[in-house]
Amino acid sequence: MSRQANRAGDPRKVNGELFTLTYGALVAQLIKDYENDEQVNKQLDKMGYNMGVRLIEDFLARANTGRCNDFRETADVIAKVAFKLYLGLTPVVSNWSTTGDEFSLLLESNPLTEFVELPPGHSNLNYSNLLCGALRGALEMVQMDVDVRFVQDILKGDNITEIRLKFIKRLEDAVPVGED
Amino acid sequence: MSRQANRAGDPRKVNGELFTLTYGALVAQLIKDYENDEQVNKQLDKMGYNMGVRLIEDFLARANTGRCNDFRETADVIAKVAFKLYLGLTPVVSNWSTTGDEFSLLLESNPLTEFVELPPGHSNLNYSNLLCGALRGALEMVQMDVDVRFVQDILKGDNITEIRLKFIKRLEDAVPVGED
Repeated sequence: MSRQANRAGDPRKVNGELFTLTYGALVAQLIKDYENDEQVNKQLDKMGYNMGVRLIEDFLARANTGRCNDFRETADVIAKVAFKLYLGLTPVVSNWSTTGDEFSLLLESNPLTEFVELPPGHSNLNYSNLLCGALRGALEMVQMDVDVRFVQDILKGDNITEIRLKFIKRLEDAVPVGED
Repeated sequence: MSRQANRAGDPRKVNGELFTLTYGALVAQLIKDYENDEQVNKQLDKMGYNMGVRLIEDFLARANTGRCNDFRETADVIAKVAFKLYLGLTPVVSNWSTTGDEFSLLLESNPLTEFVELPPGHSNLNYSNLLCGALRGALEMVQMDVDVRFVQDILKGDNITEIRLKFIKRLEDAVPVGED
């Protein structure tokens, strides 16, 4: 099936528990491979970034949303369209900075962490950091440089999971310089 | 959300492309970590086994199928209920051995490999070997010792993807000996 043909139809869905376990296997493997939580976080962010860069094209084709006029509109599209489409949930957009360049996504549940418990000695692990990387990568492809990070996580005993997005700058459309 | 509460409702679904990319990241990490394809295959099988052992409980609760009377019935439940529920597709059950202890699942498409190309030099990689392990693990939990392996794979240029299941023996209900 070509990418195009797939897009024309319904996106295929897979069972959430299978996804959760597969993601868990990935994190467990990284914990084995890297020396500390910070390195695992960085690796998850990098993997997420690469996914975001790939997923955005598919997202734009499916979501059928126009260009966002401001960061508030971007926030709404991320929460109500992107999270819904990819993870089947809609986080609450909240905690806007007065300057309108920062907001939080509040998640009451997170399919990546269902039935997961952090192993002892990994209090610095941002287990779901892949999500931050994916958001960062996808936003970069629509010319937005955005800092994305976890500030609260139910896995760590917080009451809610909170991802903070901070707009840094608009990127210039780069002139393609050809393949590497 | 407790496991029980989750089960009562609809199972959460996630986007297939997100799953494909996450699985791809896992395989890529294993390729980095292990020396050869055989070791990666083994590791994927092991990870899948651990998933199968966990997923079976959820599957039995959802699928609401009774105990299978023979291997043919097992084959049908795997293809029509399990694959449908977890991956959103229904393989064809085919190529039965005359003794009825072996069959194949034929997949015309495979969500794990969508848009995937095997990197050069990995002709022995069974990219989707996690599936074999998951089937093996889940079947073991219902007292069936089954050998599961890929015999054809579209990723390797075959016309179809074929997973072969061979019934080895019925396992005795083990008396629990307590946790490790």
